[in-house]
Amino acid sequence: MKMDLNSDLGESLGAWRMGDDAAMLGIVSSANVACGFHAGDAAGILRTLREAAARGVVVGAHVAYRDLVGFGRRNMDVESADLVADVIYQIGALQGLARAAGTTVRYVKPHGALYNTIAHDERQARDVISAIRAVDPGLALVALAGSPLIGWARDAGLRVVAEAFADRAYTPAGALVSRREKGAVLHDAQRIAERMLRLVREGAVEAIDGSTVRIEADSICVHGDSPDAVAIARRLRERFEQEGVAITSFAA
Amino acid sequence: MKMDLNSDLGESLGAWRMGDDAAMLGIVSSANVACGFHAGDAAGILRTLREAAARGVVVGAHVAYRDLVGFGRRNMDVESADLVADVIYQIGALQGLARAAGTTVRYVKPHGALYNTIAHDERQARDVISAIRAVDPGLALVALAGSPLIGWARDAGLRVVAEAFADRAYTPAGALVSRREKGAVLHDAQRIAERMLRLVREGAVEAIDGSTVRIEADSICVHGDSPDAVAIARRLRERFEQEGVAITSFAA
Amino acid sequence: MKMDLNSDLGESLGAWRMGDDAAMLGIVSSANVACGFHAGDAAGILRTLREAAARGVVVGAHVAYRDLVGFGRRNMDVESADLVADVIYQIGALQGLARAAGTTVRYVKPHGALYNTIAHDERQARDVISAIRAVDPGLALVALAGSPLIGWARDAGLRVVAEAFADRAYTPAGALVSRREKGAVLHDAQRIAERMLRLVREGAVEAIDGSTVRIEADSICVHGDSPDAVAIARRLRERFEQEGVAITSFAA
Amino acid sequence: MKMDLNSDLGESLGAWRMGDDAAMLGIVSSANVACGFHAGDAAGILRTLREAAARGVVVGAHVAYRDLVGFGRRNMDVESADLVADVIYQIGALQGLARAAGTTVRYVKPHGALYNTIAHDERQARDVISAIRAVDPGLALVALAGSPLIGWARDAGLRVVAEAFADRAYTPAGALVSRREKGAVLHDAQRIAERMLRLVREGAVEAIDGSTVRIEADSICVHGDSPDAVAIARRLRERFEQEGVAITSFAA
Repeated sequence: MKMDLNSDLGESLGAWRMGDDAAMLGIVSSANVACGFHAGDAAGILRTLREAAARGVVVGAHVAYRDLVGFGRRNMDVESADLVADVIYQIGALQGLARAAGTTVRYVKPHGALYNTIAHDERQARDVISAIRAVDPGLALVALAGSPLIGWARDAGLRVVAEAFADRAYTPAGALVSRREKGAVLHDAQRIAERMLRLVREGAVEAIDGSTVRIEADSICVHGDSPDAVAIARRLRERFEQEGVAITSFAA
Repeated sequence: MKMDLNSDLGESLGAWRMGDDAAMLGIVSSANVACGFHAGDAAGILRTLREAAARGVVVGAHVAYRDLVGFGRRNMDVESADLVADVIYQIGALQGLARAAGTTVRYVKPHGALYNTIAHDERQARDVISAIRAVDPGLALVALAGSPLIGWARDAGLRVVAEAFADRAYTPAGALVSRREKGAVLHDAQRIAERMLRLVREGAVEAIDGSTVRIEADSICVHGDSPDAVAIARRLRERFEQEGVAITSFAA
Repeated sequence: MKMDLNSDLGESLGAWRMGDDAAMLGIVSSANVACGFHAGDAAGILRTLREAAARGVVVGAHVAYRDLVGFGRRNMDVESADLVADVIYQIGALQGLARAAGTTVRYVKPHGALYNTIAHDERQARDVISAIRAVDPGLALVALAGSPLIGWARDAGLRVVAEAFADRAYTPAGALVSRREKGAVLHDAQRIAERMLRLVREGAVEAIDGSTVRIEADSICVHGDSPDAVAIARRLRERFEQEGVAITSFAA
Repeated sequence: MKMDLNSDLGESLGAWRMGDDAAMLGIVSSANVACGFHAGDAAGILRTLREAAARGVVVGAHVAYRDLVGFGRRNMDVESADLVADVIYQIGALQGLARAAGTTVRYVKPHGALYNTIAHDERQARDVISAIRAVDPGLALVALAGSPLIGWARDAGLRVVAEAFADRAYTPAGALVSRREKGAVLHDAQRIAERMLRLVREGAVEAIDGSTVRIEADSICVHGDSPDAVAIARRLRERFEQEGVAITSFAA
């Protein structure tokens, strides 16, 4: 049994700190590193990449809409010519910094509003797919488990990594419960760990209504933007190790 | 006899146009393409790169301080960790876009205030040099002819391309006459063309005081930010062709 | 008979020029001046405001989404707390610059995607309305003629200025024909001038299907972003003057 | 006996938090509120202004160079036309938000590199002075105690508030010891409080060499960007209250 753990890193910006990258790089097998559009200044990104390289953590490009103030969380109606080029630009920038850090970008995970939009919006999904193919068709794409994006990307020849979220509730249909609903975000470290163990073993979790829902996931997203989040991620890793689940990148 | 002609391109930004990239790509052998810090949105940069690829014009990264409103022309006291990473980021971003356009970044030319600063400021010069070496030691650096930067970069193992300016007056010592001085900028297309022919043939031009000054240049910078500038560049190319001076990139 | 003519000005950004503000300030009675979010650096805005003050042209705040690269033309899902504060910030900034220029901001005209969105989206419309009321309830709001925004703003106690577009075709229902449709944008200066004369005299124009559509407008928007656009605006002014239509601001 | 305490607030940016504004607004009498150029998004600034208004804390505009990534701490060679307009823009934006929050901007305190530069650089100092005068000549200017700026601003008719720093060492000549020197920043809350009490009572502090140096200060800057900094500020306020030093704004 094995599973990839990924987390969003490199999200500080100049004098502003966010997350505990050093702690998370001791927990995860894959680091989604900000590319400067929703977060990340170049020097901070480079520091995170060097630390990831030193720890042997696989690196991906966490591409986003150009929106620092909104942290890439606001839907934006970006035309295809712009979206394709913006994604290429960000991947290229991270590849340059990764080379300087002695590592390599192995995958792309869209961030925030772009992640949610392309899970279902075919036009923007195809823009991101063609951007990845234009830079390096060998890059994997991390996509929401169960979303139409997975098929679109596979049909285009991309390797796709389906992703589950450790701290999120699921509907009986396998979709994420909206953050606006009660119970959408889980906070109990022990419960989260057992839930994800079940995901690894059975390919299923308990949905918000108590039913069982199948989730085919190649990677689990854990957060590190608060001390509580780091503790949840650490507990998850401990339980995986206790139960013999190897934590290894899909790209390893 | 041969000479490289280079020009600053890709400097539009979204709805704002600057320069006539299509015209200049029919004149120059090397295109210094903006990387988004002083100018250039990703989609516009990509268009310019595709056109450069189609025309067989060699592409370089026109890296700059992060200053859109000041167009990279304002001196900024950027710390080494930031400057190194900012330069890597920009080169990487352009490499990604170049790959998508079917071409390759072959050199780096710093822009504006960064260009002028590193010609003489050793700390920032070494930052730019180490950034280039960290991304790809095979990239050439375009540097002001006669400046200390040339020695610093060569000592560090970089290939250096010394650059002269077609429309600028020189001091008897081989420095550029400051733009604040009268006569610093030349406007007569015919005179500029003959002057640059002399540069190619004799490695010398007439200084502002009438004396002869030696300029060792591997490339000549021409501008395209106005119809007059395009006409000057076009006249220069015509005269070079008439006199049998091959216009070819140093990277060709 | 009288009518206000308004135009978008102050839209240059640092080294990038846009529009011919000096020419347009000789034509219009109201200047929608960019506030830095979609266009305009502070020094350029201040120059435009000084010229407007010198010409006696009334000044309004052309507020927008924060999106320089997209020129404020991309829909953005901005939360109310942000949208309200962003609009206040822009109005305040322009008021400060206007004071320095010896003039006063008299109205607010949202720009681009924000203009189109709040014409119909009640949540964002109410955000803009409450922002204006929080800064200065005496500011008028320029809104698309015939749109629901007009009622929402009047009910909230704002003075509303209904706006028609000189160079746009209308549907029989009084809506703008989408720019994606053929014939949406008019280019014939003479036809545009006669059309707007009819609007002033009869409160009606010919719709795209040849029928007559009533448009209640207090102001006509003319463009100045190209030599053709300036010529169209100039012709409109000439015809108005010939026919005795006084060109005066609604705020005069 | 009385003294003003001021602190830099409103320096969060979207998802990035900085400082504990709520805590500091219970300590200081004057709030230097970021204006969006080095820090601060409009919604966050508005929240801080509302809290300041609720607490009766006087508000000033913390204007800066346009440099989010560098947090306004990097020297920039900004031309006068730009610097004047940028300062007006920021003051105006804060005035608009302050009006919405039910308060008023009473003073201007330049931030970071701009603060340090204009303490001694006459050209940029005069730009800031003329910007303030253009918006509202009634605004006070907070300036480094003992710096030439104080005379320049007074000569221009501005009310000037001389400022000392609670946690910084002074040279025998009354200048701040550079942060690069050992002992430049003080960390002991008790020692800092006693030191500032002496400043209030005697107009003097002990310089870094043990000598006594006179400092004429109307306001003391305290920081709140870490729990330690908040504790130091709180201790200072307690000691002032114990010793009967009234903490009141110079603008009260």
